[in-house]
Amino acid sequence: MEKERLRILQVQLRVPEKSAEALDVAEEACRDAAAEGVDLVALPEMFCCRYESARFPVEAQEEGGPVWQRCAAMARRYGVYLSAGSMPERGADGRTYNTAYVFDRRGRQIAKHRKAHLFDIDVKGGACFRESDTLAAGDRATTFDTEFGRMGLCVCYDFRFPELGRRMALDGAGVILVPGAFNLTTGPLHWELTFRAQAVFNQCYAVGTAPARDMAASYHSWGHSLAVDPWGRLIAQLDEKEGRQIVELDLREIAAVREQIPLLRHRRPELYGL
Amino acid sequence: MEKERLRILQVQLRVPEKSAEALDVAEEACRDAAAEGVDLVALPEMFCCRYESARFPVEAQEEGGPVWQRCAAMARRYGVYLSAGSMPERGADGRTYNTAYVFDRRGRQIAKHRKAHLFDIDVKGGACFRESDTLAAGDRATTFDTEFGRMGLCVCYDFRFPELGRRMALDGAGVILVPGAFNLTTGPLHWELTFRAQAVFNQCYAVGTAPARDMAASYHSWGHSLAVDPWGRLIAQLDEKEGRQIVELDLREIAAVREQIPLLRHRRPELYGL
Repeated sequence: MEKERLRILQVQLRVPEKSAEALDVAEEACRDAAAEGVDLVALPEMFCCRYESARFPVEAQEEGGPVWQRCAAMARRYGVYLSAGSMPERGADGRTYNTAYVFDRRGRQIAKHRKAHLFDIDVKGGACFRESDTLAAGDRATTFDTEFGRMGLCVCYDFRFPELGRRMALDGAGVILVPGAFNLTTGPLHWELTFRAQAVFNQCYAVGTAPARDMAASYHSWGHSLAVDPWGRLIAQLDEKEGRQIVELDLREIAAVREQIPLLRHRRPELYGL
Repeated sequence: MEKERLRILQVQLRVPEKSAEALDVAEEACRDAAAEGVDLVALPEMFCCRYESARFPVEAQEEGGPVWQRCAAMARRYGVYLSAGSMPERGADGRTYNTAYVFDRRGRQIAKHRKAHLFDIDVKGGACFRESDTLAAGDRATTFDTEFGRMGLCVCYDFRFPELGRRMALDGAGVILVPGAFNLTTGPLHWELTFRAQAVFNQCYAVGTAPARDMAASYHSWGHSLAVDPWGRLIAQLDEKEGRQIVELDLREIAAVREQIPLLRHRRPELYGL
């Protein structure tokens, strides 16, 4: 019997210079979460490594490395699910990935997603970034099972692709976790819109957790960690500063919305040729 | 050489009891459009037939029938493109379709789209409708060429499917015309969001034209005809009352946005399995 309610603590931390400090913040959040009856702690994209292309290969660790181990240990110690944002991962192939892990209450890795769409943009008079300078792309969509039903996992720019949201929904995801870091160009234009769009098209919860803005950093995060319900309505959203919020998801809404407006059943895949 | 600017007159008319009256309103709009340098006149879904399941088969006409002929004639007379909303069509197979036609400045039919996703919803305490009681569904996505580049065409509920928007964009559409009629349940929740979502995912203009609200009718249209740009920004939106608006689209923005954030190039179709 799956649970009906999921309480998530979103931790909009300011990414520090050293990963150990980020892990301390995460651990404190897990401890508080356990005390407050929170089920899942969500961290931002690259929560333990400043978002700079040159840093990713330098700070990358293998799956099972020290940062991974501390994440697993804090999930186990406090008995919470941990969506450990994302971190630079050194693959067995020697390449570097932007990788999101999820650990269950016993500290077991239950999901791993390598960002599959690399963020290479160049907006006139706005943000410019080329992840492909140092990162390789993952090659699959990711869903995983929990006591709260099946969830999806992707990283930031991945979520701009309606096909990926659809894939996760068709694979059974009712909640999609997205560590992300839009910027001061794309954030005001598209952050909330992207989450509301994926939520309403796929009739799922969409939970985006971002780093706090740090104008001393080279990349300026939009912040605004948020959660959206399967009707596409905003549940809660932070501003740009360091902060936390707890959102409670009524998981029965997922099936209820899909029953009332049966979008997933009404699809006509033979028309789309995708 | 394609033109750089497209001026559209959206006509949010109140659907009258008789189709002849709706055609008079449309003709007046075409005349005014020509006088004001408008290129294309857009009418709402079922602009000439009240939105009631039982009426569709009764009022349906074949392609080339009297309503179709008057639409073609007014486009030709005033030298404007006419997106003739949608109307009930009696197919050669004897079935009834919710069909959108587009005529060029010479009154030639250049596009025909049969609504491909039938609107069968039942929202608790809200709207309930079953198009499939009397309508059959079309079986293709629709794009067509104009002096303003390639455009897409679909009807209302069709646009809730990100796959269809994507299909039209991949087929080259930079402007998508959508006669639609959301209601008092789905309108406030999803009308604007759907158009902004499709526009931002596909980096195209999305133009939705709806009937005015008529509380004496059995189906209460949300109205709010709108146009959204390829950044997902609202250009203009009417309220629920009878009205018109002219929107001007800068067509160069389509390529500019797609160059700066290359979503269509960054797709990973091999991951989606759709």
